Amino acid sequence: MNRSSRIVITLRTEAHRVMMDVTGHVQQSLHAMQAHDGLCMLFCPHTTSGLTINEGADPDVARDIEAALARMVPVHSGFLHAEGNSDAHVKSTLTGVSLCVGVEAGHLALGRWQRVFFCEFDGPRQRELWLRFIDA
Amino acid sequence: MNRSSRIVITLRTEAHRVMMDVTGHVQQSLHAMQAHDGLCMLFCPHTTSGLTINEGADPDVARDIEAALARMVPVHSGFLHAEGNSDAHVKSTLTGVSLCVGVEAGHLALGRWQRVFFCEFDGPRQRELWLRFIDA
Amino acid sequence: MNRSSRIVITLRTEAHRVMMDVTGHVQQSLHAMQAHDGLCMLFCPHTTSGLTINEGADPDVARDIEAALARMVPVHSGFLHAEGNSDAHVKSTLTGVSLCVGVEAGHLALGRWQRVFFCEFDGPRQRELWLRFIDA
Repeated sequence: MNRSSRIVITLRTEAHRVMMDVTGHVQQSLHAMQAHDGLCMLFCPHTTSGLTINEGADPDVARDIEAALARMVPVHSGFLHAEGNSDAHVKSTLTGVSLCVGVEAGHLALGRWQRVFFCEFDGPRQRELWLRFIDA
Repeated sequence: MNRSSRIVITLRTEAHRVMMDVTGHVQQSLHAMQAHDGLCMLFCPHTTSGLTINEGADPDVARDIEAALARMVPVHSGFLHAEGNSDAHVKSTLTGVSLCVGVEAGHLALGRWQRVFFCEFDGPRQRELWLRFIDA
Repeated sequence: MNRSSRIVITLRTEAHRVMMDVTGHVQQSLHAMQAHDGLCMLFCPHTTSGLTINEGADPDVARDIEAALARMVPVHSGFLHAEGNSDAHVKSTLTGVSLCVGVEAGHLALGRWQRVFFCEFDGPRQRELWLRFIDA
């Protein structure tokens, strides 16, 4: 295994704004590359979507986060950028696009209630999630 | 030293919402594991708390950050999640749960005024902070 | 090359609040250290500025992000910290100060529209951006 290589996970987001649980996709990629112990670096290569880790047990939590971001960054608030999706760019900066998570015995080291979410703020679209594993 | 192993720091947050300076805890763990030069990955395994780096010299700065987040994400704003702590989940996404900081000669490489804070948004509780050191 | 060493990039921000595209500075440093494949860790050692990755093609996007943060965190909102720049501290926590980006064949692995921005929230000032490369 070349531990520096980038794995590209292709996603299809199904709504204009949605938090998509991608923990299974990430775990499957770690398994396919026979990752054992180290760091998993996740990167969203888009500017109108982001990544976050939050609760996945109750899907209402992800909906509440999406709705709270929508209240914090209203769609029409005098933005300059002509494409009409400036709110999505702002939300991408608020969530961030880069995450590091430990890997132990091949499994993402997350807390009991944590899941990894791809945050779509300007979909639906085909998107990519980049993964890099650093063994240790 | 097995550089991939996870260190668990146990914390007791003392208020419902509080920014707790954990720089000393992290530094102590790096010392105990005889870390020298590399990267320190910090991870909060909870979904109603987060991590941030900000000023620690004047404790009013941390209070101002907590208060500003409270204004941005009011507790009662029509959330769906029934546990009444959706604001805490949103704030966790805003601060984030994963941080990377350099380590030089055994010391966290922070700026002059920077400290690492564990951000409690739904306490008081016993919490964990996970640390991983990657030597380089 | 000692892959653990920290590179300090010195910046001069030219306005009180501005998002400065530093992708070229980072790329130049990677080139100077003959980095090939691995991880680039970027760190902002200040508490009134931050780092983000977002669109660089249309400069209006960065201006929209700066303006949206200004609406979310008004300058005068009863802050305790006496220096009058609490809004800048809050924005630093919202954007974050630490980023990880892949490096492939010596180039930052960014998405098509992505650029790395140093977010000045309390300038103009001389600032530093710290870079660390972990080869893999």
